[in-house]
Amino acid sequence: MIVVTRRGFVAGAVAALGARLAAARPGAAQAVSAGPPDPQLLEDLVAANRILVDQGVLDGYGHVSARHDRDPNRFLMSRSIAPELVTAADVLEYDLDSEPVAAAGRTSYLERFIHGAIYRARPDVRAVVHSHSPSVIPFGVTGVPLRPLYHMSAFLSGGVPVWDIRAAAGGDTDMLVRTPALGRALAQTLGARPVVLMRGHGVVAVGTSLPQVVFRSVYTEVNARLQGQALALGGGVTYLSPEEATRAEASIAGTLSRPWDLWKRKLGGR
Amino acid sequence: MIVVTRRGFVAGAVAALGARLAAARPGAAQAVSAGPPDPQLLEDLVAANRILVDQGVLDGYGHVSARHDRDPNRFLMSRSIAPELVTAADVLEYDLDSEPVAAAGRTSYLERFIHGAIYRARPDVRAVVHSHSPSVIPFGVTGVPLRPLYHMSAFLSGGVPVWDIRAAAGGDTDMLVRTPALGRALAQTLGARPVVLMRGHGVVAVGTSLPQVVFRSVYTEVNARLQGQALALGGGVTYLSPEEATRAEASIAGTLSRPWDLWKRKLGGR
Amino acid sequence: MIVVTRRGFVAGAVAALGARLAAARPGAAQAVSAGPPDPQLLEDLVAANRILVDQGVLDGYGHVSARHDRDPNRFLMSRSIAPELVTAADVLEYDLDSEPVAAAGRTSYLERFIHGAIYRARPDVRAVVHSHSPSVIPFGVTGVPLRPLYHMSAFLSGGVPVWDIRAAAGGDTDMLVRTPALGRALAQTLGARPVVLMRGHGVVAVGTSLPQVVFRSVYTEVNARLQGQALALGGGVTYLSPEEATRAEASIAGTLSRPWDLWKRKLGGR
Amino acid sequence: MIVVTRRGFVAGAVAALGARLAAARPGAAQAVSAGPPDPQLLEDLVAANRILVDQGVLDGYGHVSARHDRDPNRFLMSRSIAPELVTAADVLEYDLDSEPVAAAGRTSYLERFIHGAIYRARPDVRAVVHSHSPSVIPFGVTGVPLRPLYHMSAFLSGGVPVWDIRAAAGGDTDMLVRTPALGRALAQTLGARPVVLMRGHGVVAVGTSLPQVVFRSVYTEVNARLQGQALALGGGVTYLSPEEATRAEASIAGTLSRPWDLWKRKLGGR
Repeated sequence: MIVVTRRGFVAGAVAALGARLAAARPGAAQAVSAGPPDPQLLEDLVAANRILVDQGVLDGYGHVSARHDRDPNRFLMSRSIAPELVTAADVLEYDLDSEPVAAAGRTSYLERFIHGAIYRARPDVRAVVHSHSPSVIPFGVTGVPLRPLYHMSAFLSGGVPVWDIRAAAGGDTDMLVRTPALGRALAQTLGARPVVLMRGHGVVAVGTSLPQVVFRSVYTEVNARLQGQALALGGGVTYLSPEEATRAEASIAGTLSRPWDLWKRKLGGR
Repeated sequence: MIVVTRRGFVAGAVAALGARLAAARPGAAQAVSAGPPDPQLLEDLVAANRILVDQGVLDGYGHVSARHDRDPNRFLMSRSIAPELVTAADVLEYDLDSEPVAAAGRTSYLERFIHGAIYRARPDVRAVVHSHSPSVIPFGVTGVPLRPLYHMSAFLSGGVPVWDIRAAAGGDTDMLVRTPALGRALAQTLGARPVVLMRGHGVVAVGTSLPQVVFRSVYTEVNARLQGQALALGGGVTYLSPEEATRAEASIAGTLSRPWDLWKRKLGGR
Repeated sequence: MIVVTRRGFVAGAVAALGARLAAARPGAAQAVSAGPPDPQLLEDLVAANRILVDQGVLDGYGHVSARHDRDPNRFLMSRSIAPELVTAADVLEYDLDSEPVAAAGRTSYLERFIHGAIYRARPDVRAVVHSHSPSVIPFGVTGVPLRPLYHMSAFLSGGVPVWDIRAAAGGDTDMLVRTPALGRALAQTLGARPVVLMRGHGVVAVGTSLPQVVFRSVYTEVNARLQGQALALGGGVTYLSPEEATRAEASIAGTLSRPWDLWKRKLGGR
Repeated sequence: MIVVTRRGFVAGAVAALGARLAAARPGAAQAVSAGPPDPQLLEDLVAANRILVDQGVLDGYGHVSARHDRDPNRFLMSRSIAPELVTAADVLEYDLDSEPVAAAGRTSYLERFIHGAIYRARPDVRAVVHSHSPSVIPFGVTGVPLRPLYHMSAFLSGGVPVWDIRAAAGGDTDMLVRTPALGRALAQTLGARPVVLMRGHGVVAVGTSLPQVVFRSVYTEVNARLQGQALALGGGVTYLSPEEATRAEASIAGTLSRPWDLWKRKLGGR
C-alpha cells in the first residue's frame, strides 16, 4: 500500500513540475509549455490513477490523462510507471501529437497516442482513461455488445463500439496504439461516444472531467460483470431504453461528486 | 478506511442533531421535530450504513433509514452523501412525505420518497435499505425470479416482485424514485413483503429493525449470487418450500444479534 | 479486525475454563467434566474458527468443535457467538448428547446436535466443522454431485452425499439440526465419509484433527467453486480416479501442517 | 500479514546461506556448492514467492525457483514451507537432479523434480513456478484449450499443453511429480513453451527471469478467468492471431519491470 498525505505531495510536485517546464526546449513551437496546471487538477489526476487501481479497473498497466486547464492543446499524463505509483512529480505535459513538451529524460507510455488523438478529435473531452478493465475484456473479443443494464451505466446507451486494430492497421500488429495514425483510427471509432472497446486489449473511456471519466470507467467494469451474469441467467435481458438512458445519465451527472469524494477520501485515509 | 471511535461520535452528534432540530421551522405542523432520537438508534443507523459497505451491498450510492423511536410519523436518514462517510452528524429527520423537518441547508437524497412511502404504507416497518446490491441487479432485468436457496434467505420465500418504473410512471423516466407518487407505487408493489427489486436500478429491503434489514440486505445479495451459480450448474434447483421458509425465518429471527454484533464490532475495531 | 496475541489469551482462558468446569453440577453422571483440555487443543480450536472466516468458509454463522483430549465422550465448542469472535474463554465442554457439561448460563448453538451425534457414530473423528460454505450451497440444491477436480480435494472421492432434512424429519422443518434424532440422521448419511452436504443449508466436514478438518473445509469450498467453472466450460470434466484420489489423499496428509502453520501465523500477525 | 523489511532480511540471510553452503558435504562431486548467489537474485526469489500469493496464484502450496547465477547446473528454491512464509534463510541450493546440495536437515518440496528436469531440458530457462493457480485448474480437466484472449497473455499463443501424469506414469499415481522420471516427462510435454497444465493438479510456468515467470504466472491466471467468462457469453471468441501474439509478446517484454517494480514495492510497504 502506498502511503501519501494528500496535502503534502501537491505543493512540492507543482513546484517541481514548474521547474521541469521552465527547462523545456525554448524556440520550438510545440515545446512551449502551457505553464503549471491548476494544483487541484494535478491532485485529481494522481487520485484518478489510484482510485482506478482501488476499484479494480487498472492493474500494473493503463493510464489516465487530463487536458491542461491553461491550454486546450496540451494534456497531462504520468511518465511510464504503474498507475498505483503515480505522484504529481511523475506528471508530464504533452502536446496533441502526444509528444512530451519537456520529458527531461523520462519515458512516456508507448500508447500515449490514444490520448492526443482523442483530445484533438473531441474538444468536449477533458479526461481520458485507457485500461485493461478485466470484466470488459470478454466483450471486446466476442460478438456480444456491452449494453447498459442499469441506470449507473446509462452512459453506455449510445452503443459501445469495438475497435479492431487489425482493420485499422491493415494487418497484424503488436496490439499497441503506438503511432499517431492508430490513435486517430481509434478516436474515429470512438466517435462522439464515451467508451470504446479494443479487441484483444482493453478499453478507453472519456469524459468532461476526471471525476466523470473515473465514474464511467468504474461502472463500465461493473456493468460488464453484471451483464455477463444476467446473460448467464438466460431468458433475455431488458436494457435501459434510449430515453431512459438519456434521462438517467443527466440525473446521475449531478451526483458524481458523491462517489468521487468518497474514493478520494479513501486514498487520503491511507 | 474511515476510522471512527464508536463511543466518541454519538454523544456529540446527538447534541448537534438536537441543536438542528431546535432550529426547525416553528409553527408549521410538519416542521415540528419529534425530538432527538435514542442515541442507540442513531449509532445503529450509522453502523448500518457502514456495515452494508463492508458487506458489498452498498457502494458510493444507496441509503438506509430508520423510523424515529419517538414518533412513527418521522424517520431518520443521512443527508445526501456516500454511505461509507455517514456519521451521526449527517442524520436528518424526515416526515412521511419524505421532506426534511430541519435540513438547515443540507441536501437530501433524490430518492428519499422510497422511504416515506414505505413507512406510511407499512406500520410494521422500522428500517429501510435502498441499494444497488450487485448480484441482485441481474434478477431485476431478466424474467428469472429470485428465490430462497437456503435457510439464511428464507425471508425471500413469499416472492420477490420486480417493480418496473416504466409501468408506474406510464413511460420513460430517469429511473429514479424522485416523486411521492413513484414512492407510493413502489411501496404498493412491495406490498407486505420484505424485498422488492427495481428493474434496471436496484433493490429495497425493509425490516422491523436495523439489524433485521441489514441481515436481509446481506443475504439477499448472497442468495442472488448463489442462485446464479446453482442455475448455471443445470438440472434444476430445489428451493425452500413455503413451510420450510416460514419456519426457518422464525428460527433465524432469534439469532440476528449474532451477525449484527459481529459486523458492528468489526467497524469499531477500525 | 479482531486483534489477539496468541500467547496471551490461552493461559487466562484455560484458567477460566477450569474454574467454570469446577463449578459443574456435582453428582450428575453426565455433568462430570473431563477436566481442562490440552491448552494447545484449545488454542487450535480458537484458531480454526478464525482461519475458516479468513478463508471465506464461515461468516457470522457456523461452528467448529474438537473431541476432548482427556475423554472421548466429551467435545469442546464455543458458546453461541460468531466464529470470528470466539476466544478460549467462550469454549464449553459438551457430552455426546450435545449437552453442555457446565454452561454457566451461556447459550449453546442450536445445532450442537450435529457434533455430538457424529462424535458418537465416528470414533475416528476428532474435529467437526459445520458451515454455510458459499460455493458449496449450490451443490446441495441441485442434482450435480460434488466431485474432486484436483488432488487437493482428493478426500471428496468417496462421494459427497446430500442429506435432506425433509426425508429425515418426515416433513417440513426449520432446516436446523435442533434435535438429537436429526443429528443421528445426519451422521448416518455422512457414514464413513469426510463431508456431507445439507440441502438448502450448508455442509459438515469431519477429520481426525483440527488442521485436517480445516483443510477439508477450505478445499471443499475451493473445489466447489472450480468445479462450477469447469462444468461451465462444457465438454466434460475429468475427475480424479478413485485410485488417484486414495493415493493423493495419503500424500497430502503428510503436508497438512504447511497450510495450517501459515493460516495460524496469519492470525498471529494481526 | 507477514511484515518484512526488504533491506534487512537479505544481508543476514546471504550470510546464513553462505554458512550452510560451507558446511556442504566435501568430496562428493554433486555436493560442491556454486557459492552464495547474487543477493539481488535471492531477494527477488523471496519476493516472487510473496508476490504470487498477493496475486492469488499461490496459496499454502506451490514453489518458485531460480537458476543459480554462478552455475547453470544449480538452482535455488525454498525448503518445504508455504510460499508466503519464505525468507532468504529458507532458500536451498539444488543440483539438476533436484537434490539439495546442503539441506542441513531441512525438508525439500516433494515435487522439486519439476524444477531440475526443466532446468536441464531448457538452458534458456532461469526461473520456474509451480502453482495451483485456481482459474487455470478447470482448463486442465476439460478439453477446452487455454488460449490468449488479449495481449497481456500473448505468451500463451504457442499452445498450452495439458500433461496427464497417468500417461506418463503408465497408471494411477498420487498426482505428484515425485520422481526424476516424472519431472522429465513433464519437461518433455512442456517442450519449448512457457506454460504447461497438469491434469487434476496445477500448472508450471517458466521464464528467462523471475520477473518474467511471475508475470506469466499472473497473466495465465487472469487469462483463464477471462476466457471462462468470454466462453460463457457465447457466440465465439476471437483470440490473438499467432503473428499478433509474437509481436505483442515482444513489445510487452520491454515493460516487465513496470508490474514487477509495483509488486515488489507493495511487499516492501508492508
